[in-house]
Amino acid sequence: MKRKVLSAALALVVGAGTGYVLNVFAQQKPEVLVGQRQAAMKLQGKYFGPLSGMAQGKIPYDAKIVARNAGYLSALSEMPWDGFTPDTKDTPEKTRALPAIWAEPAKFKEAQEHFQGAVSKLAAASKGGDEGNTKAAIGEVGKACGACHEHFRAK
Amino acid sequence: MKRKVLSAALALVVGAGTGYVLNVFAQQKPEVLVGQRQAAMKLQGKYFGPLSGMAQGKIPYDAKIVARNAGYLSALSEMPWDGFTPDTKDTPEKTRALPAIWAEPAKFKEAQEHFQGAVSKLAAASKGGDEGNTKAAIGEVGKACGACHEHFRAK
Repeated sequence: MKRKVLSAALALVVGAGTGYVLNVFAQQKPEVLVGQRQAAMKLQGKYFGPLSGMAQGKIPYDAKIVARNAGYLSALSEMPWDGFTPDTKDTPEKTRALPAIWAEPAKFKEAQEHFQGAVSKLAAASKGGDEGNTKAAIGEVGKACGACHEHFRAK
Repeated sequence: MKRKVLSAALALVVGAGTGYVLNVFAQQKPEVLVGQRQAAMKLQGKYFGPLSGMAQGKIPYDAKIVARNAGYLSALSEMPWDGFTPDTKDTPEKTRALPAIWAEPAKFKEAQEHFQGAVSKLAAASKGGDEGNTKAAIGEVGKACGACHEHFRAK
């Protein structure tokens, strides 16, 4: 049991790790965590932006790019969340994270899972090859982004 | 044929896209591309760091985390490269990218592919479940990172 708890604690530390060398019990510095979570969000923007443009008919639909980006987003949708540790709440780094993230953890978690679910559905739809379904799934991902930002990110 | 060329050009533009709205022929601004490629590198560090620590015996080996991170790295290993467009060569952004990236594109491409190959092998090894093989594969990824940085990244 003790080992299990230790192992879970390690998993947290390791999951948030960076660099080539790290101490077993060294938590990442808040500024590192902020940089990593912002990196994940930035890449979500890179790979979701074009899909949103396609769904809105602003750029030509390309099923291959949609499937590729949906795969990337599946990985990226899991990456930012361990960077929102309580000690990142008051970092001097410029961030748009709102206090609601730490005040309403269950709601924040729910928003993450809603987003991840929408991305999973998009990945499945993009493999199915139906353009209409896939565009609808892109729209749902966009709504999930927006719903979370609305409540947990400063304007 | 004309359509094919157009489509390839669009794919380039779209592949480098970001934000919720973008013009079909609008290339991303150099500073956006630099930020995106640095984000991808930062996340490679986040997910490779702990594996390197495990391979070196500095933190306990956790097969589940290795497999998860190897999957993330498979996606991340494809993300930085379209951000090294020629117009990012002289951006005012702080970057460690060396001129060799643009002077020796074939060698740079080869280094990317070497890294991606090493990550693929790591992902396969981590699914295989043999700790020794997996640690060796982690070492090969580390070497691939280092070889590319040695030649294409400032100290």
